[in-house]
Amino acid sequence: MLQERIRLASLRDKVMSAAEAARFIQDGMIVGMSGFTRAGDAKAVPLALAERAKTEPLGITLMTGASLGSGIDKVLTEAHVLKRRLPFQSDPVLRAAINRGEVMFIDQHLSETVELVRSHQMGPIDVAVVEAAAITREGAIVPTTSVGNSATFAILAKHVIVEINLGQHVDLEGIHDVYIPTRRPYREPIPVVSPESRVGLPFIPIDPAKIVAIVVTNQQDSSAETTPPDADTRAIAGHLIEFLSREVAKGRLSNRLGPLQAGIGSIANAVLTGLVDSPFHDLTMYSEVLQDSTFDLFDSGKLVFASGSSITLSSACQARVFPNIGKYKNRLILRPQEISNHPEVIRRLGIIGINTALECDIYGNVNSTHVGGTHMMNGIGGSGDFARNAYLAVFVTKSLAKGGTISRIVPMVPHVDHNEHDVDVIVTENGLADLRGLAPRERAEVIIANCMHADFRDQARDYFTRALKRGGQTPHLLNEAFEWYDRLEKTGSMKG
Amino acid sequence: MLQERIRLASLRDKVMSAAEAARFIQDGMIVGMSGFTRAGDAKAVPLALAERAKTEPLGITLMTGASLGSGIDKVLTEAHVLKRRLPFQSDPVLRAAINRGEVMFIDQHLSETVELVRSHQMGPIDVAVVEAAAITREGAIVPTTSVGNSATFAILAKHVIVEINLGQHVDLEGIHDVYIPTRRPYREPIPVVSPESRVGLPFIPIDPAKIVAIVVTNQQDSSAETTPPDADTRAIAGHLIEFLSREVAKGRLSNRLGPLQAGIGSIANAVLTGLVDSPFHDLTMYSEVLQDSTFDLFDSGKLVFASGSSITLSSACQARVFPNIGKYKNRLILRPQEISNHPEVIRRLGIIGINTALECDIYGNVNSTHVGGTHMMNGIGGSGDFARNAYLAVFVTKSLAKGGTISRIVPMVPHVDHNEHDVDVIVTENGLADLRGLAPRERAEVIIANCMHADFRDQARDYFTRALKRGGQTPHLLNEAFEWYDRLEKTGSMKG
Repeated sequence: MLQERIRLASLRDKVMSAAEAARFIQDGMIVGMSGFTRAGDAKAVPLALAERAKTEPLGITLMTGASLGSGIDKVLTEAHVLKRRLPFQSDPVLRAAINRGEVMFIDQHLSETVELVRSHQMGPIDVAVVEAAAITREGAIVPTTSVGNSATFAILAKHVIVEINLGQHVDLEGIHDVYIPTRRPYREPIPVVSPESRVGLPFIPIDPAKIVAIVVTNQQDSSAETTPPDADTRAIAGHLIEFLSREVAKGRLSNRLGPLQAGIGSIANAVLTGLVDSPFHDLTMYSEVLQDSTFDLFDSGKLVFASGSSITLSSACQARVFPNIGKYKNRLILRPQEISNHPEVIRRLGIIGINTALECDIYGNVNSTHVGGTHMMNGIGGSGDFARNAYLAVFVTKSLAKGGTISRIVPMVPHVDHNEHDVDVIVTENGLADLRGLAPRERAEVIIANCMHADFRDQARDYFTRALKRGGQTPHLLNEAFEWYDRLEKTGSMKG
Repeated sequence: MLQERIRLASLRDKVMSAAEAARFIQDGMIVGMSGFTRAGDAKAVPLALAERAKTEPLGITLMTGASLGSGIDKVLTEAHVLKRRLPFQSDPVLRAAINRGEVMFIDQHLSETVELVRSHQMGPIDVAVVEAAAITREGAIVPTTSVGNSATFAILAKHVIVEINLGQHVDLEGIHDVYIPTRRPYREPIPVVSPESRVGLPFIPIDPAKIVAIVVTNQQDSSAETTPPDADTRAIAGHLIEFLSREVAKGRLSNRLGPLQAGIGSIANAVLTGLVDSPFHDLTMYSEVLQDSTFDLFDSGKLVFASGSSITLSSACQARVFPNIGKYKNRLILRPQEISNHPEVIRRLGIIGINTALECDIYGNVNSTHVGGTHMMNGIGGSGDFARNAYLAVFVTKSLAKGGTISRIVPMVPHVDHNEHDVDVIVTENGLADLRGLAPRERAEVIIANCMHADFRDQARDYFTRALKRGGQTPHLLNEAFEWYDRLEKTGSMKG
């Protein structure tokens, strides 16, 4: 079994326990780990680090692809191992520590992290810890359910620890396409011209001498926590499909649409699942995380190809897909997140990007990250990479939260992740606002009328009408722009 | 003379007066005009439109490259010809009309306008009006001092009006490189791999049958209104050069730096001029507007090549450069703004982007457009195209305005054009804040200490300290985040 997984014989004597491997990581180091939206994370070495931190000082900067599963961020936070963390996370315990100011969190566009490391603006990376399905005869690393930042971390790190996960199907081999941009000042165009483009290697090429330890694990990825579609998310999907049908009727899109991207989460997943019953066909995806909906679309015959950086599924879907991964393999590519999210490729392909907003304002600015403008939720992730460069940048949200006490459409968002220049379409269960070619005053009319819940429309119109009297391209009353948040804090509701 | 300029003989009978040509433009049309930062604008037809609007209803949507000179936006506004205007402007009369809500202004990333028109998300363009140095024997258009959006406007418009400007030197021919991205879904990579890359045609290729009118003019571009460097802008340049020198010492950059981009305006121009006396050499530019500083750097021997979309000079520099344009021609390329500002190329080349902020906040968010959060100044222009994808995104501003009553560093900017994810470095005359790899709380410390004027530091620290008590990734007190603006309005000063 291990011979099949560690094919370069000389590396087999590097197999050791997680605790022994973790010894290569010292206090103060910068560590790059695999893992993107709970998929393909290193599962043993981080826990060994946390264990060791109980008896000796051990604080690190941890870079990953995106969020981790397996409770790793929780355990590392509780053990005080994390001093600095980037570029994304989604763990409640880590989130609380970030918001207390105990862990410095750098919230980055997911395409940019390795660019900063490669150009020595961050780093250098002392140790990379990468989960693998196998090590090739040449000592190259075959990733598992995500590529994320693993390739560049491993290529640039001084030392590499590989976790061979026997729980990940060896049939994943061949699904990856590892392309690393060439060095400046002579960087060449990235040759990806369609979701199907294979332009790199099916493994991470590194000098095997850098592999200082191999740890054998046998553990599934954490499953996605999905919420089934409800009336609201079905309504959102319905509005969007109706809109896209009109775009097709106008000749702006074909019935194949453009390559689809959908952010992580229940609403975006529900929207994609809604396409199963749509008039569109022969669809493709060029996305970051491939969720249950990707495989629902494959199985319904609607989807012909999907490119992503990770596969993150519910446990039911894991059981359906992974044992049969060979069946999907010629229709799937997993790429480094730098390529899945690259502005160059996204702009070229003409992507329809569907991402979830935490909240939007009446002028079309979107907050994706900060609850109440101050407290970090997860991070911007890839939403900025896609929204800025998409053919069509769509943001979806339910119009209400917390039993109707919170409106997700507000006069002014208290944190801006995507501004008015980047947001084309906003959809809630109430309806859709097509903002393309509209000035801010026009956007406010259509967002309030189409997207906002009726319970908040009057007070939004009142604000807008009074702001108009003060004039401007984007009328506001600064001394009451955030009044709804103040009211929420004082009365438990944004309602006036 | 006219034979030299209109080389396709069959087109010579299309020469007519501006008033006659303007007849091709009717009430309600969408019109695309040449012009980028006052350079290469159509100078006669727009004024004829304004004249006609005195006697008949005439309202249009006007798209340009960027801002116009020659008083055109003023005259068109006063004649009520402009109903809708995009993607940029800088005229005080138009600005006032925009802020009164009389002209709908769509403030766009300069790289995106033609992408939206090409994909039928805006438009279609009824008439393009393009200034030219010449029409070739095949009927192609040779632009003048800017390319801007002229190429795509002319290619996609139903009808084209050409203004042959005898006041523009015919030696400009050969300076342009017109590359139009190929159509989706089979779009190819843009082959620009260095500022020197020539990848297109030296003219705009169109069907000459679309040219319905030719108007002959003889008028220089409006000159740039430059302010000479002062102690503050020299200090800003000094801090930035010192920082870049440290980056070179750390091995992150060579003494050639990366290709430079500088936004329009006095501060960015002064910073570039400061490079004349720097230790850097063999510099290149990959920018949008080439200003006096470009030619100062050429003449000092510091700059070896400059790529832009327009040349906008002071009158003294115009007199020095344009009669000798042949001398610079093999070191200059003017491209469509879609290519000069293209995310794909900017990310590939590793650009150092230097843009002017209207104001910044203590967490590194930048407002480039809205005075007091509501009133439009000029527009975002290309600053977003560059800042998002640059190797290093630098924003410069003086720390004070209006005799010290206004701080350009505030607790929270009331309009966000560039958010914390995109801003690497902020420089004022007081100093420089290197934000790379810092969490928001850390950024606040360094921005307040290094960039803020001493007069405002205490009240900023007071805000930050109290906000920290409420916690969060980005601590704020929403009910006083904009208090400084309120105080300014009530007392004439932001000082507490």
